[in-house]
Amino acid sequence: MKEREFNQNKKIALDKLKKAKLENKVDKDIIPIIDLLNSYEEYYTSSSCFGRIVLLELPSIGDKKNAKFLGKWHRTIKEKELLDAFKNASKGQIWFLAQAPIIHLFSKDLDSGDKLVKKAVSCGFKNSGFRSIKKNIVIEITSTERIDCPLGIDNRFYEEDDFITLLVNSANKVIKRSTKKLQKFKKELEKK
Amino acid sequence: MKEREFNQNKKIALDKLKKAKLENKVDKDIIPIIDLLNSYEEYYTSSSCFGRIVLLELPSIGDKKNAKFLGKWHRTIKEKELLDAFKNASKGQIWFLAQAPIIHLFSKDLDSGDKLVKKAVSCGFKNSGFRSIKKNIVIEITSTERIDCPLGIDNRFYEEDDFITLLVNSANKVIKRSTKKLQKFKKELEKK
Repeated sequence: MKEREFNQNKKIALDKLKKAKLENKVDKDIIPIIDLLNSYEEYYTSSSCFGRIVLLELPSIGDKKNAKFLGKWHRTIKEKELLDAFKNASKGQIWFLAQAPIIHLFSKDLDSGDKLVKKAVSCGFKNSGFRSIKKNIVIEITSTERIDCPLGIDNRFYEEDDFITLLVNSANKVIKRSTKKLQKFKKELEKK
Repeated sequence: MKEREFNQNKKIALDKLKKAKLENKVDKDIIPIIDLLNSYEEYYTSSSCFGRIVLLELPSIGDKKNAKFLGKWHRTIKEKELLDAFKNASKGQIWFLAQAPIIHLFSKDLDSGDKLVKKAVSCGFKNSGFRSIKKNIVIEITSTERIDCPLGIDNRFYEEDDFITLLVNSANKVIKRSTKKLQKFKKELEKK
């Protein structure tokens, strides 16, 4: 019964994937890998990204929800491409990101999932692991390399002083938000 | 028997932790959380970091192994602190990092682990999950916020052109390394 459900869900996921491929909504360089993963009866993929370089505009500070892509490349880029994308900036902070590949997939059972996570880690995807192990066994395959860097404001690059100020403010925000999360987690843990 | 082994390992881990605390090798602001986690009979922590802001010098490009800390703060900082730390730079790329908390811990069984991961995710540690589920059940609790940003070379800040060049080169390196890892992973998957 559980296997039947897995197979039904896999069928639905593969139909969705087929449609997404036809609409060019799947990063083409990741297709060989996800096709291969889906050819195993134990797994099916749900979402994936080849890795990307991104130029992002945040209309207000930290507002990642309303972020606008000024540039997005699933490949290496030339400086000119970045500078050209920057010209479309209008209002808000501009961030430059580089992100490693990420693949989410479902596994039929824990043993099969374990094999796959070990394989992924051995190939350099050191941040791979299980996101969920109960009702659904969900695996994330990814690695650690990335860049997250502020670049400018409105339509100009930061000057040195502004840049340092923003870097420090942003870093402090990471610490402050982390502290809040830890406090929340502590309260949860106290409810034994 | 398995439970006995877990309890023995927990005892060893707690002894190590006690020693590390005496030597001030544990971030003090994370201690209440890890003490609380260790007070549950189902868990014990192995390593943890409160989150940090780091100024790093890489003697040669990408050489993270031989990286030298110019500054490391487990708290928010002032601009002056960053600029002062920068003065100690001598040779190589300088990177500025901000990292969220990270806690590694062992869980007695999958169900207890699952409860904890869900709790952590609900508190904002969205990158939490299982690193290992077989012999040992290893959990990582962490979130997504971070900064990874190049700042200067040798003892000076990057000028705008150099900065763009380095950003693009570094981003391209993320893509190139990712591609290599994906190729390796593909080869592994082909060995069905």
